[in-house]
This record gives sequence, C-alpha cells and structure tokens, in this order.
Amino acid sequence: MKQGVKQRILEKGAEIIHQKGYYHTGIQEILIAAKVPKGSFYNYFSSKEDFGLQVIDYFMAFFNGMAREVLEDRSISPLERVRKLLDRFIDFFGTKQYTLGCPIGNLGQEMGDLSEPFQKKLKWALDAMAGQYIRVLSEAQSRGDLPQGLDVRQTAFFLITSWHGALIRMKIERSPEPLEDHKNFFFNRIFTK
Amino acid sequence: MKQGVKQRILEKGAEIIHQKGYYHTGIQEILIAAKVPKGSFYNYFSSKEDFGLQVIDYFMAFFNGMAREVLEDRSISPLERVRKLLDRFIDFFGTKQYTLGCPIGNLGQEMGDLSEPFQKKLKWALDAMAGQYIRVLSEAQSRGDLPQGLDVRQTAFFLITSWHGALIRMKIERSPEPLEDHKNFFFNRIFTK
Repeated sequence: MKQGVKQRILEKGAEIIHQKGYYHTGIQEILIAAKVPKGSFYNYFSSKEDFGLQVIDYFMAFFNGMAREVLEDRSISPLERVRKLLDRFIDFFGTKQYTLGCPIGNLGQEMGDLSEPFQKKLKWALDAMAGQYIRVLSEAQSRGDLPQGLDVRQTAFFLITSWHGALIRMKIERSPEPLEDHKNFFFNRIFTK
Repeated sequence: MKQGVKQRILEKGAEIIHQKGYYHTGIQEILIAAKVPKGSFYNYFSSKEDFGLQVIDYFMAFFNGMAREVLEDRSISPLERVRKLLDRFIDFFGTKQYTLGCPIGNLGQEMGDLSEPFQKKLKWALDAMAGQYIRVLSEAQSRGDLPQGLDVRQTAFFLITSWHGALIRMKIERSPEPLEDHKNFFFNRIFTK
C-alpha cells in the first residue's frame, strides 16, 4: 500500500516534470495530481532533490523497457531494430503533438550544470542509454552491417545526443521533420560503408 | 542614456538566463545585477515575456556577429570556416568549464512547448542560424567540396540540432568530448563524398 502511494507520486511527478521541467514543478501540484494528502511527501522522499533523482530512475525504467523490447528482438537485423526503436519514439511524440521531448535530455539541459547529484545521475542515465545502443551496434558491426572503422561507442552517444537536439527543434517546429532527418543522416550517411 | 539602461538590463538578463534558464530567473535579480532601480523594468519592457523575447534578439546578435566573422572569411575554404566556427565555440565553452550550453537550444528546450510567442521567436532564431550555415555549405557544395546529393538545408539544421544535443551531454560530462565527436561525425562521415 505504501509502495502504491510512492509509485503514484513518482508517476504523476514524472508526468508533470516531463511537461514543465524540474524547477517549475511544485511538490503541492504533484500531490494534488496524485490525490495524495499534503504532508505525506516526506514519508517517501527526503527532499525534492531525492524525489527528482528517483524520477530519473522512473524515466529510465520506461526507456529501458521500450528499448529492450525492440533492440533484443532477434527476428530482425540489429540496424532494423535501431530504426524500429526510433520510429516508435517518433510515433510516441506524434501522439503528443510533437511536444515534451526526452525527459533525460530535458533534465540534462535544465540541471546538468546546476546540481552535482543530478549531474551524476544523468551521466549514469546517458551511459545506460548508450549501453543499449552499443550492444546492438556492436552486433551490427560484427555481422558486417557497419563500417569496421566506425567507433561504436562514439556512434551510440552521438545517436542519443543528436536525438536530444533534434527533439528541441521538434518542439519548436511541432513537427517530426527533425526526427526523420536525424534518422536519415544516421542510416544514409553514418551507418553506411 | 535610456538606451544604455535598457542594454544593461538585456546584457545582465541574458547572462543570468543563460546560466539558470528563463523561468528560474527573476526580474529583481536582473535589476540588482544590472544596478538599475527597482520598478524601472517596465519603462523598457511590457512584460517578462517581452523581455525574454528581446533577450533572444540579444543572443542572436552575438551568434550572428561571431558566425559572420568566421563564415565570411574568404581566405579559407567554406568547410574550414565551419570547422573554425565550431572550434571557436568549443574554445568558448572551455572558458566556461563546459557549462551553459547554447542559449537558443536551452530556451528551445525550456520554452518551445510552453509559450507560442517564444516558439515563434525561437523558430525564427533557428532559421537564422541555419541560414548562416546554408550559405557556407552551398558555397562548399558548388565548389565540389560536398557530395552533390547532400541536402544542404537538412544538413545545416542537423548541424545545429545535433550540436544542441551535444551541448547537453557536454554539461553533464563537463567535457568537450561530445562537441569534438559532433565535429568528427560531420567532417569524417557526413561531409565526405
């Protein structure tokens, strides 16, 4: 039961932080949205920062679940799995009218500079995201589907960081074009031999 | 004299917004930093939003000045000018211990979704930045320095958006590596024939 309340606070908090950012999100509005009595927040979290760091875990569980389901699907080639994952994210943002962006990228922009605990946690999150892509790109490279000279680690990180940037323009343009362009540059220029 | 005060508010405001973002920056702290009497803000700006939109003009004047100086230098090839501009920005961020990021990218992430006037203004800013790169990349392509099949407009936007994403990781890692990787992917994979 206690776990249920904590989970509800994290879910609603993640939703509001995804929309408005960390600083602009108040604890009270999260508790109201989660239908949790005022004052109970500190039964579950030692501070807003502690809560924010746990929201990053929540976001990463979502990303990892989605990424694993697609990237470990051996019925299609490694690069087709990468394409499928990017397409899933493009579809997801379509359902959100091309708003929001990636919560990890958003928090990196907002908090990367300003808080050392956030900085460490976000570095951990980026490394975990990159780890997923490193595995699938290594598999592609060992099958001969990627140039032998391509640095898989650098490519995985550039895939993520350039996606984060494309999401900024997506929000400004309210359009999938920056995401489609990102995918095309990778598949037509970077992944090609 | 009036112009001097307004300019000082814009300068200090731009500096603080670059560090902390738009929402988290208070008008009072800007006026204190600019050594301007309380209450005089509304002599120059109709609202915080009006001020924020003029800060975007301020940032763009800085970007355009720096970009033009380098990108219109006919003593080196068009692609070498692009490399030189990216190196200048990398040097700039080195002097800031790899913090801050691009104010336009930051505001795009923070405000792209949340305010239509910001969204429009930021679209204008991205288009203006891209325009600078489109000119120099077109010159490179007409000299035969870029593949004929490369879409110069898409490439210019991807150069900017992927840079914005690389800056997020730069902040999290406090490292120039994401910016160097960005440059290398463009020069070694995307600009090559």
